Amino acid sequence: MSEPFISKLVVIGVGLIGGSFALGLRKAGRVGQVVGVGRGQANLDRALHLNLIDEASQDVRSAVQQADMVLLAMPVGQMAEVMQAIRPVLPSHALISDVGSTKQDVVAMARAHLGEHLPRFVPAHPIAGAEQSGAQAARFGLFENKNVVLTPLPETNEHATQVVSTLWQVCGARLSTMSAAAHDQVFAAVSHLPHLLAFALVDDIVHKANADQCFKYAASGFRDFTRIASSHPEMWRDISLANREALLKELACYQDQLTRVQTMLAANDADGLERMFDVARTARNAWLDGLK
Amino acid sequence: MSEPFISKLVVIGVGLIGGSFALGLRKAGRVGQVVGVGRGQANLDRALHLNLIDEASQDVRSAVQQADMVLLAMPVGQMAEVMQAIRPVLPSHALISDVGSTKQDVVAMARAHLGEHLPRFVPAHPIAGAEQSGAQAARFGLFENKNVVLTPLPETNEHATQVVSTLWQVCGARLSTMSAAAHDQVFAAVSHLPHLLAFALVDDIVHKANADQCFKYAASGFRDFTRIASSHPEMWRDISLANREALLKELACYQDQLTRVQTMLAANDADGLERMFDVARTARNAWLDGLK
Repeated sequence: MSEPFISKLVVIGVGLIGGSFALGLRKAGRVGQVVGVGRGQANLDRALHLNLIDEASQDVRSAVQQADMVLLAMPVGQMAEVMQAIRPVLPSHALISDVGSTKQDVVAMARAHLGEHLPRFVPAHPIAGAEQSGAQAARFGLFENKNVVLTPLPETNEHATQVVSTLWQVCGARLSTMSAAAHDQVFAAVSHLPHLLAFALVDDIVHKANADQCFKYAASGFRDFTRIASSHPEMWRDISLANREALLKELACYQDQLTRVQTMLAANDADGLERMFDVARTARNAWLDGLK
Repeated sequence: MSEPFISKLVVIGVGLIGGSFALGLRKAGRVGQVVGVGRGQANLDRALHLNLIDEASQDVRSAVQQADMVLLAMPVGQMAEVMQAIRPVLPSHALISDVGSTKQDVVAMARAHLGEHLPRFVPAHPIAGAEQSGAQAARFGLFENKNVVLTPLPETNEHATQVVSTLWQVCGARLSTMSAAAHDQVFAAVSHLPHLLAFALVDDIVHKANADQCFKYAASGFRDFTRIASSHPEMWRDISLANREALLKELACYQDQLTRVQTMLAANDADGLERMFDVARTARNAWLDGLK
């Protein structure tokens, strides 16, 4: 049995991320019993059927008894309530981690609600989103070569950070660490804002008089640009509100940028437009090359 | 030999679209000689090497002599000049078509510059863009099940429209017809605006103080959202300016939409955000289902 080994793992929210984490640890033999907790029996049944979990429960308090690790993998909007519920019953050695796409809000909630468990809480953000959700979206290898960002608190116990890091590495992830504030700013720019923009564009088209014709001729550029607009509405509502400050800043910045585009277009500024397009293409292609 | 058969096809601009059209007709045996015209010898050499064309020329006037059909497949910015150049030398039976992503401007140029050839000009827009460009991007089957929109003028000869339709169908395309104005409005919304938005987002990030960190954590959502920001800067400069009026309207509409998003975020309007995200996801998923 390799170390670290988690005898009882409780995954709260057995969706794409929580389910794939459980699967990765199971296949690596790093976990004994896996209990899945969720609000919907249908999703839990799928998770059982897919062998993501050994046992399903809708009662978080009884589920976390004897847990060695709890993964908070439900939408961030349910985080505070779940933390409050588990605090009195969680064993005093249990590790806690989360998979939230925003970190300052989760850290604030942990400070407010985890009490004596705080030193064993390791905030984490696995960067492996996909527009699918639910247990049926989980898959082995989802985290292979994906970034996982940890944002440990000053109070976080080093051993806890070490174990959580190792478990993610077992799932194939590349680990890095930054402050919760730096994390939230970066992800507002490269993830949360693009999601808002894609949702907003599709909604804009839906409400046009010629919407049917628009959708008829929408092609692969539109398909890829709007892929993230098929993401989970409740989850993205929570992320947007959780990272509201940083996101409002990015949105304002982008609106200024669109005003510059508008000015160039209105002035027939061919050179200015081409320069902007060229800077963008060059940067994106360099980024893609760096991924290889 | 199947009808229609084009004894001499001249493709001006042997890139993704022009090259793939030539290749489709060659493989179907619908074309005799194919002459490629371009400004750069390197691209023409690649086109010869890839068997897209039989002969290359940098001189459009001599190339179009004895042509049965001329395909204008260079950036729209060069369109007027090329029309002026070919008008005095083009045979009086030759068909002319284009592949421009905007149609009102091309129609206006044709009216201004094609003179007696106007009735044999069939404006066309094959919807098969890709971020790659140049002869090396051309491929057989590019137009398979892709939409091609024709926007014939009242003066356009019906036989000309018929032949051009058939040639595109030979390449596997689905044909439809609309007015140039309706075309430009639809494509401003579903293609040109998304391109501007993607270019603008990448350019915005490039100029941030934490740009390196942003690119480090940008993931698959960002990659797909910005795929069209790897498109050809000169081509998209031309398209943006050519469809300036419709694009400015769409951009203003989208900026209003972002202001609504900003207002909802600032007001912590969870229901409003979730509703917008849900409308967008539902519409996009229905659209995707319709494509199957």
